[in-house]
Amino acid sequence: MSRQGNIQKILPSLRDILGDRLSVAQAVREHHGTSLTHLAPALPEAVAFVNTTEEVSRLVKLCHEADVPVIAFGTGTSLEGHFLALEGGLCIDLSGMNRIVSIHAEDLDATVEAGVTREELNHALRDQGLFFPIDPGANASLGGMTSTRASGTNAVRYGTMRDNVRALTAVMADGQIIRTSSRAKKSAAGYDLNALLTGAEGTLGIITEITLRLYGIPEAMSAAVCHFDNLESAVKTVVETIQVGIPVARIELVDPLQMELINDYAKLDYAAKPTLFLEFHGSTQSVQEQAELFGDIAAGHGSSNFRWATRTEDRNKLWKARHDAFYAVQARYPGKDFWATDVCVPISRLTECVLDTYRDIEETGIIAPLVGHVGDGNFHLTLVFDKQDPEDVKMIESFNDRLVERALRLEGTSTGEHGVGIGKKKFMPLEHGPALDYMQAIKRAFDPKNILNPGKIVDLEDE
Amino acid sequence: MSRQGNIQKILPSLRDILGDRLSVAQAVREHHGTSLTHLAPALPEAVAFVNTTEEVSRLVKLCHEADVPVIAFGTGTSLEGHFLALEGGLCIDLSGMNRIVSIHAEDLDATVEAGVTREELNHALRDQGLFFPIDPGANASLGGMTSTRASGTNAVRYGTMRDNVRALTAVMADGQIIRTSSRAKKSAAGYDLNALLTGAEGTLGIITEITLRLYGIPEAMSAAVCHFDNLESAVKTVVETIQVGIPVARIELVDPLQMELINDYAKLDYAAKPTLFLEFHGSTQSVQEQAELFGDIAAGHGSSNFRWATRTEDRNKLWKARHDAFYAVQARYPGKDFWATDVCVPISRLTECVLDTYRDIEETGIIAPLVGHVGDGNFHLTLVFDKQDPEDVKMIESFNDRLVERALRLEGTSTGEHGVGIGKKKFMPLEHGPALDYMQAIKRAFDPKNILNPGKIVDLEDE
Repeated sequence: MSRQGNIQKILPSLRDILGDRLSVAQAVREHHGTSLTHLAPALPEAVAFVNTTEEVSRLVKLCHEADVPVIAFGTGTSLEGHFLALEGGLCIDLSGMNRIVSIHAEDLDATVEAGVTREELNHALRDQGLFFPIDPGANASLGGMTSTRASGTNAVRYGTMRDNVRALTAVMADGQIIRTSSRAKKSAAGYDLNALLTGAEGTLGIITEITLRLYGIPEAMSAAVCHFDNLESAVKTVVETIQVGIPVARIELVDPLQMELINDYAKLDYAAKPTLFLEFHGSTQSVQEQAELFGDIAAGHGSSNFRWATRTEDRNKLWKARHDAFYAVQARYPGKDFWATDVCVPISRLTECVLDTYRDIEETGIIAPLVGHVGDGNFHLTLVFDKQDPEDVKMIESFNDRLVERALRLEGTSTGEHGVGIGKKKFMPLEHGPALDYMQAIKRAFDPKNILNPGKIVDLEDE
Repeated sequence: MSRQGNIQKILPSLRDILGDRLSVAQAVREHHGTSLTHLAPALPEAVAFVNTTEEVSRLVKLCHEADVPVIAFGTGTSLEGHFLALEGGLCIDLSGMNRIVSIHAEDLDATVEAGVTREELNHALRDQGLFFPIDPGANASLGGMTSTRASGTNAVRYGTMRDNVRALTAVMADGQIIRTSSRAKKSAAGYDLNALLTGAEGTLGIITEITLRLYGIPEAMSAAVCHFDNLESAVKTVVETIQVGIPVARIELVDPLQMELINDYAKLDYAAKPTLFLEFHGSTQSVQEQAELFGDIAAGHGSSNFRWATRTEDRNKLWKARHDAFYAVQARYPGKDFWATDVCVPISRLTECVLDTYRDIEETGIIAPLVGHVGDGNFHLTLVFDKQDPEDVKMIESFNDRLVERALRLEGTSTGEHGVGIGKKKFMPLEHGPALDYMQAIKRAFDPKNILNPGKIVDLEDE
């Protein structure tokens, strides 16, 4: 596109700032322009490995003057092509900004640089009896998780990134550094820039530091796996659990095909049936109460044998198996392409949405293992296909269209947690209607030259 | 100011739409242009009593074309002058939009028109075993509460309006009607317009309908009042309670002077000492556990005798007394003026902030009863003074400046829940630094003619 090449005239200045932390090597550019999924690679023209917010600010200033696109990069684990450099430009790799700036145990908050991963943060918190619950499948960076408004298995109890970001430092399109909010637990002082930058996918500013809310590690934690004879019984168990108000920490649905893949990948021997993975947090007494209440509901829907895990290592093994679901699909179908999609609906519409989708999978005859954060009404499919086969691509595309339209018709959203990126962008007009004009207005106001991750979420031309 | 009078040429068109629901009567204008606090009245030129979102849209379109300011009005209980019509214009009174549109018990959400008050909603929810927890002192409208990002005594457990608004309908500056978000529990689909309009004080759009998150009424609820010998012990008890993770539903500090006023106003006989009002929610077992844990902490700080209330009517009486704190101050000092202010700091800085403020009150010699949602690090003062006395005004103003500067120095915010309005506007540059430019950019993008509640939060001219 027209801005490819603009970077040439600022390369010497970029190199002055970064030295050998600026790379134009093909392998590096490929790594930063290729996603885990089926989306076509789109390479940045150079990659900057940055160390500080001030450095990011200097780079963005140069790019702003020279009309060079700037794309923020964390761990490269996003699923909708968020970091693909559609117009080339400079990729800013924040993985070197991996310092934990401060931990205030007494205020239950920590401030981290954007490159710190969720596992690194939890490692640092462990001896203080604290944890950070948000857990997308990958060991993603907290900057990336903030930018995509990530959630994960714990969101049903602890919320998403939206609920757990207390303050941010960001570099704006002209290089200006801003700090949104404070360490106070709440504020009514002006527009919520915090929430606006969370989930903006690097299109409004580059997040370099985040103050996150923390939680005390519960006195007791207990995980369980239970199987059902059919998907409907499993989903109805979830809906009932949420409706009676059992404060489950995790409640995850895995379908028979995905169970089979998990068993293979992680060398486990679970039944290849519709399955729920659960976890309860609380006092010893409360965890027992919750488990008993849940057991009654599950039994009412025909689930009998539970496999419990209370020891930390057994729980970790169980959740590792669940988190590796996407990798398990990749391992089983070498040479295939993978389209990861997710939608989210009100819990009262979940049974209908899952069953209709399941029917669609069967009728279309595609391979599409299902997992879901079903306590939030959110589920994922990994669509396995061959992107060289135009018929296959067409079939998968129209399946995904029907999935999103179904979710929207059931008062839901086109993406519960993966974000818009490239993959969900075409659904934005249908989902938001005239509200999309105001998203465009914000983008135009914050980044009139459209240098920040161009081509994602909204375009600047009128639609 | 320059836009006073612009309304004249559209009055006939407004009357065509509204008939006798348009008023230019002096008494009506005074009611809609006079706040509960010391701030000088500023009257709208006309008041529209609206019935539907479409009607609001038609009115705003007319005002937009004729450059007439538009101010949304709920119950008129805000404390920082949010609805004062600084440039005249049309006040849109939404109290007639008081329909509960839908209650989805199974999804724990309800959709209400903006004029529904929090008590009306809770009344409608009661037989379904549900409640909506956010409770500013006044029986405010849910539209007003959303617009000021209100919170209250339950926020320590249930969050603020920010955490409990799932979707919105709003009329934008040119009359466009938008719907933000869906009924899904979470979404990663684009910029968070929901959060942006929540707390925008009617400066970005007029909220006409809100989808709110609901909660099941807990199996057990127990409230208590306990007294301390000094303020420090009370605050330290709160800090320790939060830090050990007791999930208190409410934990409120009231100082000796405010206790005395509450006793007088509500005909009660509590000790006029530093006091905590508390409430625990959960299963019967869990409420007992929480109360015992709290009791140990309080005892460690010298509090002995607790007064418990478990019956609904006793709990209601207790919380009514707490909610009436501001009215109790007004009742004791007839003829005086009242400046209600609030700040919020990280809980680890709360003891320092409250004690320094208390010292300042003593040294300045002012009357300033203190109450606080101290579990959130948030506290309020009602400054009693005489606005006809320039010395008094100067003293109160500089006291308030010191209070806000102290909170900001301690990593807090100028307002935890009252909002910016007029009263806190001058602190925005100090609090937000360059981030304020981006708030201005949003305002300019959404409302370039600055007709929506002009003069609040940010001005459009560069600062």
